Formats: sequence, structure tokens, C-alpha cells
Amino acid sequence: MKPFVRLMLLLLFLSSPFLLKAQIVDQEVHRVVFQVTKGEAVDQEQAIGQLNNILRALPNAEIEVICHGKALPLLLKDESKVTDGVTDLLTRGVVFAACENTMRRAKATKEDLISGVITVPSALAEIIIKQEQGWAYIKAGN
Amino acid sequence: MKPFVRLMLLLLFLSSPFLLKAQIVDQEVHRVVFQVTKGEAVDQEQAIGQLNNILRALPNAEIEVICHGKALPLLLKDESKVTDGVTDLLTRGVVFAACENTMRRAKATKEDLISGVITVPSALAEIIIKQEQGWAYIKAGN
Amino acid sequence: MKPFVRLMLLLLFLSSPFLLKAQIVDQEVHRVVFQVTKGEAVDQEQAIGQLNNILRALPNAEIEVICHGKALPLLLKDESKVTDGVTDLLTRGVVFAACENTMRRAKATKEDLISGVITVPSALAEIIIKQEQGWAYIKAGN
Repeated sequence: MKPFVRLMLLLLFLSSPFLLKAQIVDQEVHRVVFQVTKGEAVDQEQAIGQLNNILRALPNAEIEVICHGKALPLLLKDESKVTDGVTDLLTRGVVFAACENTMRRAKATKEDLISGVITVPSALAEIIIKQEQGWAYIKAGN
Repeated sequence: MKPFVRLMLLLLFLSSPFLLKAQIVDQEVHRVVFQVTKGEAVDQEQAIGQLNNILRALPNAEIEVICHGKALPLLLKDESKVTDGVTDLLTRGVVFAACENTMRRAKATKEDLISGVITVPSALAEIIIKQEQGWAYIKAGN
Repeated sequence: MKPFVRLMLLLLFLSSPFLLKAQIVDQEVHRVVFQVTKGEAVDQEQAIGQLNNILRALPNAEIEVICHGKALPLLLKDESKVTDGVTDLLTRGVVFAACENTMRRAKATKEDLISGVITVPSALAEIIIKQEQGWAYIKAGN
């Protein structure tokens, strides 16, 4: 056996516990609409933590995060406590959407949102329609 | 062209932005079971506001509002802070249901409910069965 | 008619209102994933009460209770305020699962859990997958 092949086999053998561990990660496509309604710093951090947990367990999950009511600040450029967390999740394909009803009440415009964040006319209508299309629903927060 | 027809065409042209706006309203039938568990005045007003938001975006939505636990007062004739809101939504086809388990604990009778409100034996059983029948689920509140 | 048969018929007749009452209980199989995220004593008691309510209305319901975040203590041998309630529900077929992400953060091990409680790698992933498999979703708490 060539030394290179032997080395590869050895590495494969040594890494097998990690391979086994990797197998508990679920590679299927999952679709989830994730509702956030709270806005304190601790709530924002919890939401980002939960989204990272979902992606760790289900790396191919398609996630749409709907922020409305008190959760709007999570998505506002000048107010968010988790801008880096949002931006990182955006680059990994997570969709963040702000509710236009909430934005109108808060006098926020699309320019006030973190770059890459979209809007939906009604947070609740969006959550209803996503469920009809087979998406799972998670309400964030305690 | 007759002046009347010309006027109609002009009005149609002028109103086209509104027609376009109207088209973003979704005329499909949507079915949603809406769970309310909080009972402070601010929670009651939020629930009514959210229900109106849903109907604005989805005018043909079939909505069943399930009030249980601390949310029972929302439906009680002598205690509700939003009687007008409930009555208005009832006339627009929204179903409001009080949980009989909660009513027993609160010693409330059907006569104590706002006129037109129905009851269900168990709020949670109702929410489960509705989801099985394809209804979307929204948990109200922050 | 023999006295014994007559007595049986009389008892049957007298119990008919209770038979009728029994018929409003739904004997179908229902499957529900029940998310608990709060951990105060009052929250723990409310969760156990709600689970008992579900089983009273839907005696054949298959229930999986997912405890994560602040709700982990509900399932910890040395901290739970509702050990008897959990144990009783376990004997009636309810599944209780603790989130391994939460356990790691809390430095809790499987030995710390009430006997019979299982774990899942990620509470939210579990809730998503159950919904995909047709389970109804209930988020506990107010």
C-alpha cells in the first residue's frame, strides 16, 4: 500500500467517531416560519441563539424569521442589539422579514432596516400562508 | 365617446394605483385558529388589533379565536375591555370561543359571555383538532 | 326476570346520562408536540394541568412534551416542582423530552433527569420535524 493511501485510511479510521456524530445531523430540507414578538436585548440574543441551534441540527433548513410588534428593533440598523448575528444568518440563507403594519406604526422605513432584510405586508398573514404551504411554525421566546 | 363613458374611463385610470394596491389583498380562503392566553387590557387590545390585521390582509380568512386561562375575561360581558371589538369581529364572521374548563374554574356561565360567543369543552383539544383539519395556528401575545 | 338482571338494567338506565357525557370525549388518535419554555413553579403546574386537560378531552392523544431553555428544571429530579405530575403522565404514555442543547448549557446530565424522561438533540429541530410528520403544535404558557 502506498504511504499516502495508508495515511488516508488512518485518518479515516481516526475520524470515524466524528463521522458518526455527523450522521445525527439531519440533511433533509425543512421549512420553518419563526415568529419573533419580543424586543429586549435578551430576547434578541435568544432568538439568534435559537436560529443557530436550528441550523446546527438541520443545516438545510429553510428559515423565514418574521419580526413584528415589539420585535421590530431586532431588524433596525440603528437599534438592533444583534446586527452581527442577523448579518451572519442572512449570509447563510436565513430570510428576515419585518412586518409593514408594525413599521407604519413605528414610522420606520425600508432604509431603516439592516441591509438584506425584506418586508411583508402583514406578519400574521405571512405566518398563516407559510403554514398552509407546509412550513412548520415556531413561536420564539419564553 | 359619450361624456359619461369618458368620465368613467378617467375615473378608472385615476383609481388604477388603488386597484393595484387592492390586488395585494389575498382573496383566498384561509383558516386559522388563534389562541389567546393573556388577559390584561393591553393584551386584549393587541389581540383585537391582530385579528383586524389578519382580516385586512386576508379578508376571506375563517378565524376561530380560542380564549382560555387568563384570557377568559376578554369574552365576559361584565369584564371585557374590548366588547365593541369582539362584537364587530363577530358580525364579520369571526368565531370567538371560551374554554369550558376555564369557565368552570372561574365559575362563569354561558350567560356571562358576550352575546354570540360560543364555548368549547377544551381549548387545547380544539386547537389540536383544528390543526389536524388543516387550520394554521397562531399564538397571540408577546 | 332474575333479580340480578333487573338490577343490572336499572343501573344501566340510571347511568345513561354519564354514558352520554362520556360520548363527548374524542376517542380518535391525536398527536401533539407540546413546547414548554418557562420554568417558574406556577408555569410547571400550568403545563401539567394543561396536559391533563388534553388527555381528559382526547384520551388517546399521543403527546410529546419538549422542555427547553428555562423549562429544563421541570424535568430535573432535584429541582422539579411537579415530579409526581410528570411521573403520573409518563405512566399514561406521555413522552417527556429534555433538550440536549439546554442540558449542556446547564451542565445537566441524563442522570439528573426524572426517571423515564428522554432527551432530544435540539428542542426546536424536534418540534419542526414532528410538525412535518403531521403532529399539531401547542406552545404552553401565557
